[in-house]
Amino acid sequence: MARIVKKFGGTSVADLDRIRAAAARVKRAVEAGHEVAVVVSAMAGTTNRLVTWCQEAAPLHDAREYDAVVASGEQITVGLMAIVLQSMGVSARSWLGWQIPFRTNGIHGAARIESIDTQEIERRFAEGQVAVVAGFQGIGPDNRITTLGRGGSDTSAVALAAALKADRCDIYTDVDGVYTTDPRIVARARKLERVTFEEMLEMASLGAKVLQTRSVAMAMSHGVRVQVLSSFDDVPGTMVVNEEDIVEKQLVTGLTYSRSDAVLTVFGVPDRPGTVAELFGPLADAEIVVDMIVQSQAPSRDRAEVTFTVPSADLDRAVAALEAQRERLAYQRLESNSNVVKLSVVGIGMRSHAGVAKIMFRTLAERGINILAISTSEIKISVLIDAEYTELALRALHTAYGLDADPAKEPA
Amino acid sequence: MARIVKKFGGTSVADLDRIRAAAARVKRAVEAGHEVAVVVSAMAGTTNRLVTWCQEAAPLHDAREYDAVVASGEQITVGLMAIVLQSMGVSARSWLGWQIPFRTNGIHGAARIESIDTQEIERRFAEGQVAVVAGFQGIGPDNRITTLGRGGSDTSAVALAAALKADRCDIYTDVDGVYTTDPRIVARARKLERVTFEEMLEMASLGAKVLQTRSVAMAMSHGVRVQVLSSFDDVPGTMVVNEEDIVEKQLVTGLTYSRSDAVLTVFGVPDRPGTVAELFGPLADAEIVVDMIVQSQAPSRDRAEVTFTVPSADLDRAVAALEAQRERLAYQRLESNSNVVKLSVVGIGMRSHAGVAKIMFRTLAERGINILAISTSEIKISVLIDAEYTELALRALHTAYGLDADPAKEPA
Repeated sequence: MARIVKKFGGTSVADLDRIRAAAARVKRAVEAGHEVAVVVSAMAGTTNRLVTWCQEAAPLHDAREYDAVVASGEQITVGLMAIVLQSMGVSARSWLGWQIPFRTNGIHGAARIESIDTQEIERRFAEGQVAVVAGFQGIGPDNRITTLGRGGSDTSAVALAAALKADRCDIYTDVDGVYTTDPRIVARARKLERVTFEEMLEMASLGAKVLQTRSVAMAMSHGVRVQVLSSFDDVPGTMVVNEEDIVEKQLVTGLTYSRSDAVLTVFGVPDRPGTVAELFGPLADAEIVVDMIVQSQAPSRDRAEVTFTVPSADLDRAVAALEAQRERLAYQRLESNSNVVKLSVVGIGMRSHAGVAKIMFRTLAERGINILAISTSEIKISVLIDAEYTELALRALHTAYGLDADPAKEPA
Repeated sequence: MARIVKKFGGTSVADLDRIRAAAARVKRAVEAGHEVAVVVSAMAGTTNRLVTWCQEAAPLHDAREYDAVVASGEQITVGLMAIVLQSMGVSARSWLGWQIPFRTNGIHGAARIESIDTQEIERRFAEGQVAVVAGFQGIGPDNRITTLGRGGSDTSAVALAAALKADRCDIYTDVDGVYTTDPRIVARARKLERVTFEEMLEMASLGAKVLQTRSVAMAMSHGVRVQVLSSFDDVPGTMVVNEEDIVEKQLVTGLTYSRSDAVLTVFGVPDRPGTVAELFGPLADAEIVVDMIVQSQAPSRDRAEVTFTVPSADLDRAVAALEAQRERLAYQRLESNSNVVKLSVVGIGMRSHAGVAKIMFRTLAERGINILAISTSEIKISVLIDAEYTELALRALHTAYGLDADPAKEPA
């Protein structure tokens, strides 16, 4: 007997047939003797429609009202899921955020979970009842509905698993696990049987869209074993585990890419102590996060070139902020480019092996791919390149790091 | 300064433009210095879609889960209405049933309101804030969402008006008031400036679909002044008032019709004491409500004919219940007909005038319309006739009772 939280995303509960398929999985777990809590998202498309209505009602709207509106999506799914489970002979009841309660702070629209009262759910586990819990929502100190921000249902599921001291948190989605890289681009991408929390955290924040970053961080800090698997196919997924549980450590575990950055180059910055740092003042004031930074000497000795990345969505604001201070900052010219991609290699094996960066630079150089910027952490190396090389670079690196699936082992 | 509850039905909040139009009415009342609570239904079509999903999930479903699902409709509207009001510069916040709380009994799907805590809403009235309240929903003793049954938002509005001791409850709908009869059938139907609670109650239960019967009964018992008016046109509506407030009493106030009854005739019932009454036993056991009853002597002296009406929806069950007991009840033959209509004349003036029935019988007889059954109360007379005569009978009676609009007074 195990205690399991199962989370079904929007595409896994998109209509009644999908809800029935998800319920059938829950039923199997119950029949196997497990205690099961189900966390559901809104039916695919519902949240987008509700968000659009709020925006059309008023572009700047009260986040408390937004939360009341959008939380209705999950309210519909929990009720339908409970009805379907009951019709299959499984004892079940729905739980809304305020009923449990799932207490959060008061930051409406992006609330953080503070506590979950699981007493009643656990009492009903003992009676064989499945708890069907609305993801994405909680109740704030003002006694009003809060939401956790987009993708928050993953976080709800992991938080509930932590509170319930569950043996496992299964995240059902429309992919069947975590891959070495995007299989739509690299045909020989392999599904990972296991991945560590640290790797998953880097991969999630670097563009792998399988799990929401916050939910991985929470799983890591509470030691919740997470499994990512498909709600459509009956195949094993990927387990997100502690480093100790990984027997054979790879040098590199996965490759990710993200097109959500833009690059800015400031030419002719006076090369005096402090002036380069001053460049980032206006950006910090505008709350724009600067990521990769490269400073180089310009042909003229007393001038420097500074290249850095910002989120594409903030590019226009970044340019405006810098242009407004042009006189004071005394730079000569500004260039921006959003047609770039950030490629990252991630792997805990990097900690003990020094050759990862060398392989990356050599492989990209052999294909004539220019690196615009680099950033590293203990377990990842990211490079910024022209977006048109994305597929070429991903395939070459996938092979270079020995990640390609063995064709002999592939299913026929 | 007055305290006013304004209720907007589904067609009045069907999309954001309609919500804006409703909000503009609220804003005008606020600017006139009134304290305003707004009660809203789900956007037109929403509740039907949610109900269908529940039925498709499982024909026999847990009413508690049904309530969680369908109550989400009003949750969406209150949030959007509050956002729109705020964008117009009107201070407003949404209130869900469980937040107020709007306490009900535990009959999920058809709950009755037990108490409404208005303290916080009244405190915010003093600060100029509009309360936007979700109609149709409450919270039961089990701490779960309850709904009041279809059309329950009218009841929510009247109950809130009673709890707030409001000066008036405005019910905005897609018609601009209560008419002497259905204007789609009788072109010369007149809008009533005033109607008494008793008349409105009879008219609502006899087929006039303007107000839900339960809400009228509640308004009557709590003395809530109700106004029915259009959310689309800026014209005065109909006030539902106490009898004392009606200056010039009409003999007849309105004519209604209902096609929701079916008639059953049982031939050859043994004419002995008790046998006729026995006929209704199986129907009562099946919880079928019998309305109009006529008993007549059959040509053979020791046999009687019994004619009565049941709701059309229950006709098949009624026939089955009687046929199952045919041997014991010893009747000869059963005939049923659902192609009938119940016409009713309603008016408090009937109490003091005896001629109402006479006018009815004479008018119908002159047109060769046969009366199948009759039932009366202090302020109404209902007759059952063949459905094909509905329009003819309504127009003739409307003229006979002097209800026709004066063409000279009509708008051009």
